Amino acid sequence: MISEHVKPILDGEIRSVARALSCVENIDGAAELLRELYPYTGEARIIGVTGSPGTGKSTLVEQIARRYLDRNIRTGIIAVDPTSPFSGGAILGDRIRMQSLATDPRVFIRSMATRGKMGGLSSAVDDALVVLDAAGYDRLIVETVGVGQDEVDIVRTADVTVVVLLPGAGDEIQTFKAGVMEIGDIFVVNKADREGAERTAKEVKALIASEKRKEGWTPVVIRTIATTGTGVDELVDTMERCLAFQASSGSRSLKELDSARRRLVDRVRELFFLEATTLVSEAEWDELAERIQKRKIDPYTAAEELLARIKEREGHND
Amino acid sequence: MISEHVKPILDGEIRSVARALSCVENIDGAAELLRELYPYTGEARIIGVTGSPGTGKSTLVEQIARRYLDRNIRTGIIAVDPTSPFSGGAILGDRIRMQSLATDPRVFIRSMATRGKMGGLSSAVDDALVVLDAAGYDRLIVETVGVGQDEVDIVRTADVTVVVLLPGAGDEIQTFKAGVMEIGDIFVVNKADREGAERTAKEVKALIASEKRKEGWTPVVIRTIATTGTGVDELVDTMERCLAFQASSGSRSLKELDSARRRLVDRVRELFFLEATTLVSEAEWDELAERIQKRKIDPYTAAEELLARIKEREGHND
Repeated sequence: MISEHVKPILDGEIRSVARALSCVENIDGAAELLRELYPYTGEARIIGVTGSPGTGKSTLVEQIARRYLDRNIRTGIIAVDPTSPFSGGAILGDRIRMQSLATDPRVFIRSMATRGKMGGLSSAVDDALVVLDAAGYDRLIVETVGVGQDEVDIVRTADVTVVVLLPGAGDEIQTFKAGVMEIGDIFVVNKADREGAERTAKEVKALIASEKRKEGWTPVVIRTIATTGTGVDELVDTMERCLAFQASSGSRSLKELDSARRRLVDRVRELFFLEATTLVSEAEWDELAERIQKRKIDPYTAAEELLARIKEREGHND
Repeated sequence: MISEHVKPILDGEIRSVARALSCVENIDGAAELLRELYPYTGEARIIGVTGSPGTGKSTLVEQIARRYLDRNIRTGIIAVDPTSPFSGGAILGDRIRMQSLATDPRVFIRSMATRGKMGGLSSAVDDALVVLDAAGYDRLIVETVGVGQDEVDIVRTADVTVVVLLPGAGDEIQTFKAGVMEIGDIFVVNKADREGAERTAKEVKALIASEKRKEGWTPVVIRTIATTGTGVDELVDTMERCLAFQASSGSRSLKELDSARRRLVDRVRELFFLEATTLVSEAEWDELAERIQKRKIDPYTAAEELLARIKEREGHND
């Protein structure tokens, strides 16, 4: 039986979805809600869009979403702003970005920061994806800057990964060579009206050709001008082709298993830590940190002491 | 009493230091070594250098290290390559980078990847900093790409944070506005012989002026050309000025306390997880992950079940 507070989310009621997202973002005890929503997930396809700041990712994502709307495909967008732990909120708030889409009920846009989640950014994004998936959005686009560990985890969750580059990104390509090159299913050279776009596209193609991918999808390079929409149709077609390929080749199922395992690991860590913070007082943490700072104890011994205390207290609480 | 295997590290013997770094990078049980080294730390100053790929960070770091050597200050460099979890190793290996420095025994260069550490990248960097600090390097430069959560943690550890930008990085500055702007002590506009360097420097200055920092260090903007060394002396002088300021204002001590607490938290998590992986078999993880993937169980309930099992087994093992 579908409970009363879950039904409006499953029906995709915008305000309930928004409330659910705020809930899973800010409350560590949102497990109850997520637990109820989880069985209704698995239909959405996740698209990761990643690239350095200034590559035009946001504009590109906006254009992709518009193409999906033209095809009457409901689209959720999660824009991850990893810089925001410092500011306590998403930099480019939902309001100012993608204004042209904001009024369409078939698209849902949310900027996310790290703050407020014990499990870190990737865990927060996972939870948000559960909400949007259950709410019936068919395509979920996760936009991330850079290539930190959290971004890596997020990208691993995606069914298709789009790496956005700029013309003349020679240095960047070299840096990415052994890294992002391995995860990109589609490489976009955006701002393709700039000088060097063709050369950059060629360089990326050469890198792809030089790689020995075992099997499966061969990465595609596409030139776009996000501001005018040039190349975006080709991009969306390629994304869909990649999704279909993965579903038929079984690699989607492997990715899902990998992602399920990672989520389990994340969640076990999170649960343990929730418990640890209940069983250890703020004053205890502070006191140990001060002793570490003053070199009266090392962090390794201090952590062992603390874990022993936690286990002892667990015993008393059971 | 200083133990035999710790002494050569404290003496700064290059090969022992290198071995110690490999040990803390790859072995989770390296706590014993770190425990012994920790009391000998606290003298080194940590400088974080961060910026997008292609900004010329590595060349700049090389130039900074060279200036320190001119002043006879021993310098350790940790270049964090966050893309490498995919490739399993640092992209720009130690050998090919900073070749001009590699032969000087007063400088130590190490590239780091994420792989092989349960506690994640920031924990791996923390441990490496302990080794280099104990080995007597006076300045430790941590070079990171991008602004993911791990990078944020790393930057928080640094005494001075240098943010490297390029001329015409208008988009980037806007993205960084509320994020990196808050953490940068020094902003470098590198490749300052390119068009727009002066304007970019002005824009950053304007952003700094518009911020209401409570007190303390006022961020400085410096133009450099890393390839020729132009501006690097000014940069190093400013870094040293910032370090002196922080020591006298007490903000260094606060940062250390914050960092000690974060390390304690990281390490407790890590220890717990080491234990969890001992008490739960691979087959159990796999089986649960598969049930999650098939929506037979949700990850939240699965994690609770697993934590309960771990606690029960802990009891039996004690």
